Parts: sequence; structure tokens; C-alpha cells
Amino acid sequence: MHIHLQNPAGETLFTFDRAMWDAAVARAGGNPDEHRVTIGTTPEDFEAAMPTMEAVITDTGTIRGMFGRPAPALKLVFITSAGLDRLAPWDWLPPGAVLMNNRGTHAGKIGEFGLMALLMLANRIPRMVTNQRAGVWREIWGNVLTGRPVTIVGLGTLGSAVAGHAARFGMTVTGIRANPAPHPDCVRVLGIEALDSVLPATEFLVLAAPLTDATRNLMDRRRLNLLPTHACVLNIGRGGLIDQDAICDMLDAGRLSGAVLDVFTPEPIPEGHRLWTTRNLIISPHTSADDPNTYNPRSLDIFLENLSAWQNGRPLPNRFDTARGY
Amino acid sequence: MHIHLQNPAGETLFTFDRAMWDAAVARAGGNPDEHRVTIGTTPEDFEAAMPTMEAVITDTGTIRGMFGRPAPALKLVFITSAGLDRLAPWDWLPPGAVLMNNRGTHAGKIGEFGLMALLMLANRIPRMVTNQRAGVWREIWGNVLTGRPVTIVGLGTLGSAVAGHAARFGMTVTGIRANPAPHPDCVRVLGIEALDSVLPATEFLVLAAPLTDATRNLMDRRRLNLLPTHACVLNIGRGGLIDQDAICDMLDAGRLSGAVLDVFTPEPIPEGHRLWTTRNLIISPHTSADDPNTYNPRSLDIFLENLSAWQNGRPLPNRFDTARGY
Repeated sequence: MHIHLQNPAGETLFTFDRAMWDAAVARAGGNPDEHRVTIGTTPEDFEAAMPTMEAVITDTGTIRGMFGRPAPALKLVFITSAGLDRLAPWDWLPPGAVLMNNRGTHAGKIGEFGLMALLMLANRIPRMVTNQRAGVWREIWGNVLTGRPVTIVGLGTLGSAVAGHAARFGMTVTGIRANPAPHPDCVRVLGIEALDSVLPATEFLVLAAPLTDATRNLMDRRRLNLLPTHACVLNIGRGGLIDQDAICDMLDAGRLSGAVLDVFTPEPIPEGHRLWTTRNLIISPHTSADDPNTYNPRSLDIFLENLSAWQNGRPLPNRFDTARGY
Repeated sequence: MHIHLQNPAGETLFTFDRAMWDAAVARAGGNPDEHRVTIGTTPEDFEAAMPTMEAVITDTGTIRGMFGRPAPALKLVFITSAGLDRLAPWDWLPPGAVLMNNRGTHAGKIGEFGLMALLMLANRIPRMVTNQRAGVWREIWGNVLTGRPVTIVGLGTLGSAVAGHAARFGMTVTGIRANPAPHPDCVRVLGIEALDSVLPATEFLVLAAPLTDATRNLMDRRRLNLLPTHACVLNIGRGGLIDQDAICDMLDAGRLSGAVLDVFTPEPIPEGHRLWTTRNLIISPHTSADDPNTYNPRSLDIFLENLSAWQNGRPLPNRFDTARGY
């Protein structure tokens, strides 16, 4: 099988190389000579692989270089992101090819980021940083996490990883997801239609859902105003899940305790945008889920698990459902 | 026994009241009528209690109201701080009275704060906040904690609590303390004279020691320069443990990855001080260890444990050794 790995042009931190591939094959107990593996960086490299590649591994930005070009042998498309909303509509996908996302890669890193953010909000770091920026010493007291209510919207890899840490620190975790099946780290899991009813008793709101037609602008101004005034917000899903102007207004007015946001509309945040000066807000530049030390090796492990499933006629764990959007 | 609780004047968050005392006595399985308990707030209240009080519970600032005044019956002095460096020299202590600090109260809160700070440093939040202040979007990538070396100076309540979390997240913990006895969460514990030899391989440096003649200016400019350039620093001990100008210079120059500091020289940090604009630094206003929801109830639990030990002729767990300073 011809497997092509296309690195993003100009990227230096998150790149695949042959040694990384060989190490992943060795971890999976495979034969390093089983497949023909090519690794590209330039658009010409990508184009040279297209006629024969049967599997491609690349990122959301780079896959666009394939749009409208023939890749007649292509059967497996593995994208190294979890959220593929930026690739819709899906008409670029060759007929019969299976699309996979990178669900699962982010668990370790995003779990630690999520726990960090919950602790930062509990310790009121956003407010401390706002005072620091103003050059003002003011005592701000935080509290421990145990017993405090957190609502996590989305229980995929990201939301589950955060739920696990939150539960281990004694928080009372409510999960919200499309299919409200029980979750081991949640005291209850409710459908998205129940969100309005849980917001008034939510102290920590974590947004970890994919961006779909069902979740776009989910936290609009009305819903944000259902939160109590001491509530705080963490968004590690997509900027489009929230009415960004509404949360900026509320943070500036002291209507919320604080926020940690990793995702925005648009990205990058433009120079001079009001987000840069919003009070009681910590801005992380959409890097919460990715650890350069572990990201690509873990991605290859996940790809090889899916390849093995495909070769053995089993369902692919990372198959992306274009109809539902995750 | 006459036990007097003197609240700090003007304090509203951290105050003792009768219901809190009764609840603590109930938790300890005691008899609420065994002691005569008075609770004061004004200097007059304190003065009225002095002639007969046999135990006093108060804070470092308030105890100064007793300096030079007779408290002839006083046997037990319980101070609601852990570090009593601000009360030296000790000649104010009535002869025969036992001084106790509040060692142990801070474990839950400071452990979470310490873990938060390690995660913030691993995720490079200080740098993100510096970019946010400048209104600049720049991708900054962090890494997970597992396998990374942390050196914790001081393994009392604070250092031990941080060591526990660090070990649970897979960090390699080196402890430094005056008496280098083994510690369950440290792969090794070394004496303070070994500090120079461990700094070059230290990625995270946590200062959690008391301020004594042996630790004052411990992290001077020479020792700070033994750290690698990607190292980061957390100080939850005392500002005087570190050469503050040296760390500001190094942070501004990018010679360190980042710092979270909770303690400073002096406090409050004066208006216009260089700390306010130092890069890659998060300032917490000396509130890391205290949770208003749990602090005073926990303090009373600890006092009652010590009272019981004293009544039964056992050693007092919180006895403060004025000779060594902790």
C-alpha cells in the first residue's frame, strides 16, 4: 500500500519523518517494509504522490492542496485534527474514500490544559492578571475544586479528558451531549435541550463540543445570561460555540468571574480586537490540545490502529461522519 | 480554660465565630462547655481578654497588639500562619508559653495552586499572557508534565502538597531540605548544600521553604544562572528566598521560560514597581495557600489537636521552634 505523509509547508514543530513512522510501526508490532511510505513537504511532493497514494495523512490546511485534483487510488484520508468543520462541505472527498479525524490524540494534553484552566478559574487567575496589567495589588482569594459544579458540553476526547480530572478533584460533573448516555466521570449526562435548566447552577462551564449546525452559537447571549454571576467559562471547542461579543461584554462588566478561551472567531485574533483588552480573560492561541513532543507519534499510533481495522474489515474507530459533522 | 480568639480588625473573609468553634469542637468529639471561649475583634476586646486568657488564637498582624503587655495566664499561642518570620525576634513571647504555627492548614489549597502553577508553566501561560498584554497572536506550544524534572526546595506542608500532585502527574521530583530524609513523592531528597548540583537539570523550580537565616536569598543571581534557559520558577515560600531583581532581569531577557510568583519583597508590591511589567511572569498577591471557605475551620481543627496533645502531655505537632525558625 502506498501511504503518503504530507507535512504542512513551513512547519517545523509538528512534522512527520521516517524515523517517527518506523517507531510507530514498531510500537504496533508491524513490519516496516509492508507499505511504501513517502513523506512530502512541498506542493510538488504532494502532487507527485497523488496518482498512486492509497492513504494520505495530513492536516486540515494541507489537504486543501488536493481539492479538485485526482487521487484515483485514494482509500483512506487521515486528518491530524479532531474538528474538521473547516473542511465542509465534503464534495472534495474522493468517492469511496474513508475520512478519519485524529480523535484521541489530544486526550493527555487537553486533559492537563483543562484541569489547569479549571484551577486557574477557581484561583481567579484571570482577575489577578487583569490587576497585574493595571499594576494594582489587590488580594484575590480562590477556593479548592472539591464539591463545585462543572458542566461540560461535549464528551468526546476533549470533554472526557477534562471530566476525568474534574471528577478526580472532587467536582460534581454534569455532562451535556447529543446522545445523553451515562459517562463514568459525570454524575449525570443530559441532552443539549436540557442546557438551559443546568446553567443557573453551573459554576464552571466547559465548552468542548465540535462546531456543527446544532452547536453553532450554542452559548448565545441569552444562555450566557442564565449563568450565575460567579460563574466562569472555559472554551476548548471552537470559537463559534459562543457569542464572543456577549462574553466580552459580560467579562468587562464583571457579570462573570472569569474566562479562559483557547478558540476564537476569527483566528488569529486581529490586532486591535476588543478581546485583547477584555478584563478577567486569559487568551490561549488555540494551542491547548497539542503537545509537539507527543502529537505526531500519537497520531501515527491512531492511524495504524485504523489501518489495521480497515485491513481486517472491522469498523474504523476514527471514521468521521460527514453527515453529523464529527 | 479560657481560650480567646482574636479576629483581625477590619477583616471580613477570614473570621472566627462561635458557630465555627462549636462545629470544630463537635468534629473533634469534644464538649462545647469544657472551655470558656471569648471572641474579639477590636483592640479593646483583645485587651480585656489578656489578664485571664490561657490560650490565644490569632494572626501574625494581630498578635503584635499583645507585645509588651502582660498576659500572665497565657500558656498556648496559636498563630494562624505557617511562616512566622515576621514575628522574630521572639522576646515578646511570655516565658513558658508555647508558640504554635498553622502548619497543615494550607495543604489542600496550596497543593491545587502548586499543581495549577506547574501546569501553567508547562503550558507557557506566562508567555501567552505577555503576548495578550501586547495584543499579539503568536502560537505557543506547551507540553504535558509526565517525565519532567521538578526540584522542590522545602518539603513542609506546602512543598509536600506540591510534590504529591507532581508525582501523581508523572513528574520526576527532587526534594531539597535541611534534613534530607526520604519522602514518598520524591525520587531523591538532598540537603541544601546539593542545590547547585541539581539546578542545571531542573526544568521546574519550586520554592516552598520558610524564610530563615539559612534560606534568605537562597536563589541569588549566581544560583538562578545555574538553571537551564527553558527552566521556570514557582515561589510560594517567601519573597526573600530569591534575588527578585535577578529573576526580573532574567525573565525580561528571555533567560528563563516563565515564572509564577505569589510572594514578593516588599508586599504589597508598590505602584510603578518593575515587577508589574516584567515579561513572562504571573503575579499572585500572596493568596495561594488560603481558601476562605475552609481556612479557619481547618485552623480550629489543628488547634484542637494540639490542645488535646497538650492536655495529655504529648508533643505538640505544631510547636514552632524559634531557634530554627519553623
